[in-house]
Amino acid sequence: MLFHVRMDVAIPRDLDPAERDRLVAREKARALQLQEHGIWVHLWRVVGAYSNISVFDVQDTGELHDLLWSLPLFPFMRVEVTALTEHPSTQRAGQTVAEPTVRPPHT
Amino acid sequence: MLFHVRMDVAIPRDLDPAERDRLVAREKARALQLQEHGIWVHLWRVVGAYSNISVFDVQDTGELHDLLWSLPLFPFMRVEVTALTEHPSTQRAGQTVAEPTVRPPHT
Amino acid sequence: MLFHVRMDVAIPRDLDPAERDRLVAREKARALQLQEHGIWVHLWRVVGAYSNISVFDVQDTGELHDLLWSLPLFPFMRVEVTALTEHPSTQRAGQTVAEPTVRPPHT
Amino acid sequence: MLFHVRMDVAIPRDLDPAERDRLVAREKARALQLQEHGIWVHLWRVVGAYSNISVFDVQDTGELHDLLWSLPLFPFMRVEVTALTEHPSTQRAGQTVAEPTVRPPHT
Amino acid sequence: MLFHVRMDVAIPRDLDPAERDRLVAREKARALQLQEHGIWVHLWRVVGAYSNISVFDVQDTGELHDLLWSLPLFPFMRVEVTALTEHPSTQRAGQTVAEPTVRPPHT
Amino acid sequence: MLFHVRMDVAIPRDLDPAERDRLVAREKARALQLQEHGIWVHLWRVVGAYSNISVFDVQDTGELHDLLWSLPLFPFMRVEVTALTEHPSTQRAGQTVAEPTVRPPHT
Amino acid sequence: MLFHVRMDVAIPRDLDPAERDRLVAREKARALQLQEHGIWVHLWRVVGAYSNISVFDVQDTGELHDLLWSLPLFPFMRVEVTALTEHPSTQRAGQTVAEPTVRPPHT
Amino acid sequence: MLFHVRMDVAIPRDLDPAERDRLVAREKARALQLQEHGIWVHLWRVVGAYSNISVFDVQDTGELHDLLWSLPLFPFMRVEVTALTEHPSTQRAGQTVAEPTVRPPHT
Amino acid sequence: MLFHVRMDVAIPRDLDPAERDRLVAREKARALQLQEHGIWVHLWRVVGAYSNISVFDVQDTGELHDLLWSLPLFPFMRVEVTALTEHPSTQRAGQTVAEPTVRPPHT
Amino acid sequence: MLFHVRMDVAIPRDLDPAERDRLVAREKARALQLQEHGIWVHLWRVVGAYSNISVFDVQDTGELHDLLWSLPLFPFMRVEVTALTEHPSTQRAGQTVAEPTVRPPHT
Repeated sequence: MLFHVRMDVAIPRDLDPAERDRLVAREKARALQLQEHGIWVHLWRVVGAYSNISVFDVQDTGELHDLLWSLPLFPFMRVEVTALTEHPSTQRAGQTVAEPTVRPPHT
Repeated sequence: MLFHVRMDVAIPRDLDPAERDRLVAREKARALQLQEHGIWVHLWRVVGAYSNISVFDVQDTGELHDLLWSLPLFPFMRVEVTALTEHPSTQRAGQTVAEPTVRPPHT
Repeated sequence: MLFHVRMDVAIPRDLDPAERDRLVAREKARALQLQEHGIWVHLWRVVGAYSNISVFDVQDTGELHDLLWSLPLFPFMRVEVTALTEHPSTQRAGQTVAEPTVRPPHT
Repeated sequence: MLFHVRMDVAIPRDLDPAERDRLVAREKARALQLQEHGIWVHLWRVVGAYSNISVFDVQDTGELHDLLWSLPLFPFMRVEVTALTEHPSTQRAGQTVAEPTVRPPHT
Repeated sequence: MLFHVRMDVAIPRDLDPAERDRLVAREKARALQLQEHGIWVHLWRVVGAYSNISVFDVQDTGELHDLLWSLPLFPFMRVEVTALTEHPSTQRAGQTVAEPTVRPPHT
Repeated sequence: MLFHVRMDVAIPRDLDPAERDRLVAREKARALQLQEHGIWVHLWRVVGAYSNISVFDVQDTGELHDLLWSLPLFPFMRVEVTALTEHPSTQRAGQTVAEPTVRPPHT
Repeated sequence: MLFHVRMDVAIPRDLDPAERDRLVAREKARALQLQEHGIWVHLWRVVGAYSNISVFDVQDTGELHDLLWSLPLFPFMRVEVTALTEHPSTQRAGQTVAEPTVRPPHT
Repeated sequence: MLFHVRMDVAIPRDLDPAERDRLVAREKARALQLQEHGIWVHLWRVVGAYSNISVFDVQDTGELHDLLWSLPLFPFMRVEVTALTEHPSTQRAGQTVAEPTVRPPHT
Repeated sequence: MLFHVRMDVAIPRDLDPAERDRLVAREKARALQLQEHGIWVHLWRVVGAYSNISVFDVQDTGELHDLLWSLPLFPFMRVEVTALTEHPSTQRAGQTVAEPTVRPPHT
Repeated sequence: MLFHVRMDVAIPRDLDPAERDRLVAREKARALQLQEHGIWVHLWRVVGAYSNISVFDVQDTGELHDLLWSLPLFPFMRVEVTALTEHPSTQRAGQTVAEPTVRPPHT
């Protein structure tokens, strides 16, 4: 099950530099680990910002929360979570998913 | 798995009154049905607005999307979805869930 | 009488760690107490944030205010209160409440 | 129990003028009636806008919702509800209410 | 002449506690004084926030400004001022004020 | 007593052209009249928008409201009113007004 | 080169149903085509909305613009484009990209 | 050439009081000077805020920028600049400026 | 003198197609003309939107306003104007402009 | 390939003045260098703010990100990136680019 997550990071200037480097290194290690486990499936840098846009594949919302909450840089993040599902116009969906006829949403 | 959903409804004035009543009736029937199935677990009216705040218990995000997309009034709704998980300070959680020590989020 | 409350918590980094742990522990105890008294009727964690969405059942607005104001973490919270009432499409309401015919709100 | 309500009215131009005058007249009659019953306790016009700021004294949120929902102009209103309670610095409160010591909210 | 004022207070955590108590006490005394003089005509606490909604009856905008500017907690407030006038649907207005026919504002 | 007013005008396309020209002409005549009476003391066009920024000198808020409400284009305006008062750093104020010492507002 | 694009679709209710179905079908065909060409690399449905979050791999901004502009549903979309680049904590980047030491962005 | 400028001032609490008084005094002197030179043509205090609304008459944007940038309190200001031009409904314009027929902006 | 202008265009669907094509053609001709006169000095398309970002070089604000107001598509535009001036770090400025020492703006 | 970038700079007051001057000087040198290389093609100061509006001509998004991330003042900037492409109404485009017929975007 997929979740789109934007993380805007702002590490306080007065954080001890060594502590910051430790946190950043642990964050990077954790990210690589979660990618290896097929959980952190997409991770992109937003151009011009200390932010990323990611997609997580998790069993449920509890797993996603614990995962985000455990990120070393979590205390310095603004996190926005958007639930995703399969889009009817994807190749994979082409075979399986027929979305109810598209009715014109409220305009 | 729980999702918090706010729905703000605005049915266009020029919708045929009979069609509107049909939609509203089908919406009510669908809501009652989903409550009976234990999916629509909470449904409250927001005071002073044609809006509701609901909580859904679903298997995954796909089920939630299809369910919302199939609501008769969906085309006239603005929908805001927030993923929920168990809070460590709930009675149930008291026995089971120990949230990692609370670190001060970014301030 | 029900109120929907979202609390976004941001404990300052420079708060003495022992004081923070005390506050968090007292907050948890207070939350469990109010749940036992049937006042704090719902408490969920918002995924990816140090925030909760709650529903309180209180006698009046004064009780809700005093309750929120007395939470140990109140000084570090951004609180959003939404008044709720029974929705005409709930099972309970099915028997009792007939909402005036739904007229199309302003679009 | 007091609620602060802001109502921003926007009657569609293409509403039949006679119907509009009827609605406005019924709205005025309803407002006068609710004032006589001590429910609509304050009603002011916001300068430069077809909006009002009001204070309602109601038994509970259900009564407030039904009252607002039943206003003839409700379908053409944007409504914002804020729950109020007694302020510790009011003359009346001076005798009765001692608010827990004011701790500095989150800054 | 009436003005609606919302004040959101946020006293910095690092303000000397004794100084804070002095300010809060002086603020309360000032509020009581202005209420006695019939200037601060309404003062309510916003539920769940260190905020108030007030109505002031003043001679002119200069008096309102000086009054707000002189409040002990003014340096720690976010203040929103809305000019009010008599609403044509109030009982008092019923006898005196006939608002020009209500034309449909821009929608 | 001075009020700063921003008016954003949006005349619907489907308004009968002759009616629009009549309204615009009456609006212009009314503006010139109010300027002659020293009430509409400043009127500037916002560059790139069908908007103006104005300053009105009125006796009280009621006069300002009636004046705005009576503008021919009022039904097609979004109006923002800001109460003004004399600034202590103006030449006129230099002689008369000594603002209480400037304390640092909340930062 | 990757771009993150959110598309919020709102097809007007008064669009001829046959025309709408044609547009939706052509949109789906175009999406499948671009996916086959490896340009539309990710396409997800946002839960509860007639919206998608996509990632495009294009040669340059001109190609992205022409592509979006040519989508059958483009006239009924609100489009938000975010430029992406490789994140230093991705597995691929692990070998190649060493981001300049992370300095604490403005807080 | 006229520019409308809103300045919201927030002097940090921890600024040395003597330095703050010096800055405020120099700001006042500068404002008086620019008024005498007919550059700072209007200066009003926004009621209830440490803010002013001003109108500057300058040769070009460079002059306005240098002037604002050189204000002693500039480092503690949030500045909003709006370009103004003559309104066709002003008395002066009545003789000179005939604005192209007013077409209904986008609604 | 330079002004940065963003124009978001939204031509109503129900505009007669021939009229729309005429307007678009006249808009294009006007844009080319103003570019030839060195007034419309930069014109870029915002990727994914019917919007442009432009820079105009004009004598004064009046000229800019008349120019924008006279654009054939002006009635269907949302226009945002930002006054620009020379930046001290430009090559040209390198020789001429020494900006007063940069003091830290309000943070 | 062009990108429009707005940078709002806010250097913390408590940054060592010498360090600030060093950063500002290095920022200026870097800006001049990138202008010489034809990468930083436009750089304007926003009137009344410690902000600039720039246009960069880069090979891809990665180059833009690294460039922005390496700016000495990046840690104290809020950066907004907008992808640009050639506008069909530019002189250059006049010869080459024929944009698909302009269909009325969603209104």
